Amino acid sequence: MGNRITNIYRRFFDPYLASLIENQRSLFNSRKTEVISLEEKDLTIVFWDISGFSGLFNLIKRQYEVTVFLEQYFGLADRLIHKHNGILNKFMGDGILAIFGYRNIKRADVLGASDALNCAFEFRNLFDDMKASWIKLWHLHFGYRPVRLDLKCGIDSGKALFGRLGTDKRDEITVLGTVVNFASRLECRAKSNEILISKETKRRVNKLYDFRVVQLSNNQRIRGFPHVKYYYEVLNEKPLRFANR
Amino acid sequence: MGNRITNIYRRFFDPYLASLIENQRSLFNSRKTEVISLEEKDLTIVFWDISGFSGLFNLIKRQYEVTVFLEQYFGLADRLIHKHNGILNKFMGDGILAIFGYRNIKRADVLGASDALNCAFEFRNLFDDMKASWIKLWHLHFGYRPVRLDLKCGIDSGKALFGRLGTDKRDEITVLGTVVNFASRLECRAKSNEILISKETKRRVNKLYDFRVVQLSNNQRIRGFPHVKYYYEVLNEKPLRFANR
Repeated sequence: MGNRITNIYRRFFDPYLASLIENQRSLFNSRKTEVISLEEKDLTIVFWDISGFSGLFNLIKRQYEVTVFLEQYFGLADRLIHKHNGILNKFMGDGILAIFGYRNIKRADVLGASDALNCAFEFRNLFDDMKASWIKLWHLHFGYRPVRLDLKCGIDSGKALFGRLGTDKRDEITVLGTVVNFASRLECRAKSNEILISKETKRRVNKLYDFRVVQLSNNQRIRGFPHVKYYYEVLNEKPLRFANR
Repeated sequence: MGNRITNIYRRFFDPYLASLIENQRSLFNSRKTEVISLEEKDLTIVFWDISGFSGLFNLIKRQYEVTVFLEQYFGLADRLIHKHNGILNKFMGDGILAIFGYRNIKRADVLGASDALNCAFEFRNLFDDMKASWIKLWHLHFGYRPVRLDLKCGIDSGKALFGRLGTDKRDEITVLGTVVNFASRLECRAKSNEILISKETKRRVNKLYDFRVVQLSNNQRIRGFPHVKYYYEVLNEKPLRFANR
């Protein structure tokens, strides 16, 4: 019954990655090669996390009150990341790691970054709607005081290694590089529902959005990135968009 | 060729989880049920991360210099987590999330915590050996200045949800709960190669190890856990061990 088991396993993978695995093709070209070997590419990396989620866990009495919420959140992320040409690489608790730019054949650097920002905006909007219903339900039906939940987001762009890291016994699809660490740090820095991006991501989407610069004083520097003196909060989409988008 | 593809997919999973998936059994009992449904259990959660790894990425010129190191690190983690009855749940860049206590039939709370600590000690020792060879290689052969790499570790124990979170399109095996968040925060707090554990984990392994209490002043409190006033660093195994271990 290999086929039935394959169908079960496949559901644990991003569909695009699953198709590469099953065809044993490289992520980055169509040569038949080792399954998704680790390669360097120009990518945009996005981390999301729900602030206030720990507090919610302390509050609830029955686990389904939170698992149904999480399933909906996971389903929403999966759908939107796909819609915007990204890969949902990892889902850990309420944390999400997504990768953009690998499926864009041309201008992958710019389109990957704009896909990521478009996804982040749409996810924030739809999360806000979903959250409002749940907070009402938790409050009215289960009697919990209104909780505050915010979707935080950190984004960086640049060269990263993406693909399969393998040992003799075990494989894992992972992404590696300073842009991954920096995107994660930005997500940690985000307050309430901010979308924070690096200087490099901003450069790629400069014409599409409005930004606010966040200056870092000496005692606010980011661990591991002492040279970084500022990053940006994305404020809103600019009203005028490129005709070809 | 379902079987060949199943063999490829299987390598992306912890072998114990793979056997549960293929037998479609619950993680926590032997009833045939939904594949690994999300259930609450008493677990010990461990996070590891390599401090200094970002700096290394900035230094290297050829990616194999770091991917071969990572493959070895990943293989070591996989082997040791297994040896100590744990599950390697996620591998993200240089970050690892492992789960202990789910396979211990009796006294899962105490044995899960002691398995986790024994694993953390052995991993730190073997990582130190491995690291020493690599730092020498990077320095002598590739000409890089000696880097400092440390294996940081954070551990907490208690009730958590573990299993499959599913949507109509996608599944993910994940672990959820305040102990997961707290273990992650402890790992972030660890300096150099410290193994930091919560009060609850310490209670479970009190007789096996020596500890140092880390008091938190008001401005050192952990985000999301304002009530936590202290945690522990694990110093060393006590010379006298239980006869039945």
